[in-house]
Amino acid sequence: MLPAWLNLTRTVRFGDTDAAGVMHFHQLLRWCHEAWEESLELYGIEAKTVFPGCRDQERWPDTALPVVQCSANFKKAVHGGDRLVVRLTPQRIDQGCFEVRSQFLLNEQEVANGLIRQLAINVPTRRRCPLPDAISRWLEAAEIGQIKEL
Amino acid sequence: MLPAWLNLTRTVRFGDTDAAGVMHFHQLLRWCHEAWEESLELYGIEAKTVFPGCRDQERWPDTALPVVQCSANFKKAVHGGDRLVVRLTPQRIDQGCFEVRSQFLLNEQEVANGLIRQLAINVPTRRRCPLPDAISRWLEAAEIGQIKEL
Amino acid sequence: MLPAWLNLTRTVRFGDTDAAGVMHFHQLLRWCHEAWEESLELYGIEAKTVFPGCRDQERWPDTALPVVQCSANFKKAVHGGDRLVVRLTPQRIDQGCFEVRSQFLLNEQEVANGLIRQLAINVPTRRRCPLPDAISRWLEAAEIGQIKEL
Amino acid sequence: MLPAWLNLTRTVRFGDTDAAGVMHFHQLLRWCHEAWEESLELYGIEAKTVFPGCRDQERWPDTALPVVQCSANFKKAVHGGDRLVVRLTPQRIDQGCFEVRSQFLLNEQEVANGLIRQLAINVPTRRRCPLPDAISRWLEAAEIGQIKEL
Repeated sequence: MLPAWLNLTRTVRFGDTDAAGVMHFHQLLRWCHEAWEESLELYGIEAKTVFPGCRDQERWPDTALPVVQCSANFKKAVHGGDRLVVRLTPQRIDQGCFEVRSQFLLNEQEVANGLIRQLAINVPTRRRCPLPDAISRWLEAAEIGQIKEL
Repeated sequence: MLPAWLNLTRTVRFGDTDAAGVMHFHQLLRWCHEAWEESLELYGIEAKTVFPGCRDQERWPDTALPVVQCSANFKKAVHGGDRLVVRLTPQRIDQGCFEVRSQFLLNEQEVANGLIRQLAINVPTRRRCPLPDAISRWLEAAEIGQIKEL
Repeated sequence: MLPAWLNLTRTVRFGDTDAAGVMHFHQLLRWCHEAWEESLELYGIEAKTVFPGCRDQERWPDTALPVVQCSANFKKAVHGGDRLVVRLTPQRIDQGCFEVRSQFLLNEQEVANGLIRQLAINVPTRRRCPLPDAISRWLEAAEIGQIKEL
Repeated sequence: MLPAWLNLTRTVRFGDTDAAGVMHFHQLLRWCHEAWEESLELYGIEAKTVFPGCRDQERWPDTALPVVQCSANFKKAVHGGDRLVVRLTPQRIDQGCFEVRSQFLLNEQEVANGLIRQLAINVPTRRRCPLPDAISRWLEAAEIGQIKEL
């Protein structure tokens, strides 16, 4: 079993659909990012250690994590009211880059998947830098969780 | 205590913020509608009995529920990572109209509220009609839940 | 005739609709804010004089303009592909507060309207302050434009 | 020169940014789809010949065009107020599939690009079918426009 913080759920809402009666495609990328944020939260990483603009931040994090690439594949129609399982597979690319694959399943069948790749940037210098410690710990724990899964 | 299906939570996500570092205002109206959908779901009403475009719908509901009015008040800054409590106060206006007030609280203090008013319309005739039974039952149960609260 | 910078157009896009086949309600509030931004731009006010997060800003503006209230009324169904006229009626409320009413018209008939009220806040002190000069000039010019209209 | 209906512009709005002060990544996919819609409109194809849910549609189009794949690359930070040029490169993949690449440029430098691939599906049978005639004409005209460009 994947740990609970890599195995989420999401119910598709009415506003996520378009006039074709199914999910409008770009909502999936929003869900991918939100699933990643939820995973960090469930794993115990506070938003303010990673994201700017949070409450009670004495200063904003030195490291920004801009998305440099994203993609998605849509395999089956996704409808309003669908309760999807969202399985995350994070992967470190190098010391300053990682990606998170999100699989969206309905009745154990994959209906769509998405991928977001993020780069660590030092905010003052605008240069690449190592990933924040919290993200590194989360990536390592995810790797272990995925091995146990096999 | 309000019943659990009128007393929800929502964590503010990074994509809900803007460059001023706080929630971008119109996200709140999305949250109001999604909170209403979640409340129906928790109360036991399947999306397909209310919304068009759902899975396994033999036919779409005869009654549409267009939003005819909405409003929101913003009292305190809402930040990414904030875990908000969302309290719903539904109210029947007449046989074919209802509204839902959503209060958003942080540490028991109201940071914002929103209101959505919806009208029942018979889809084939485009004329006003009574609310669907499921919505009526949910409204009545909410009224009782709110009285118990006092 | 209203000046061009208060008389805009917007084509409704497919992603603005939901499975009921019409515009999803909260998109209208987004349009209201974007219409205001477009009006400032057409009037000649650069984004960086008003909004944080802009390019080539030596520093962010001292005055933030958070939305404190918004509302909308939906009168007729709005469909994908509709080319709407958007008429703005800005109004100063006091030295540190203004609102903008947006009327959305199709074939000279109002299909919806929205209202956004914003407050000037000094960013360092978080206290109310006068509106930025650029906004004041735009409000005055709009008042004159509206009088000419009568 | 590319024809005007493949060479669009978009101003980045404040609500497109997040608390990091730059465009929130998934907005770009929305812009890609909206640029495609705008291109069809400028080329002279009415929304109601392609999209469901439009005004004055006696019936909805028989052919749906679900997105089956999308991707984006982010090369430079995109800020609120940026006036981007959007260059579209449509390409037919086979008789029932096409994709549109959108390049986003600031001062003639590419800041991001996105790709959307869509499949033609016959709505009653849910099977693959040829692209609608209007889309085929637009693809052919785009191919000619791009050759002229070289």
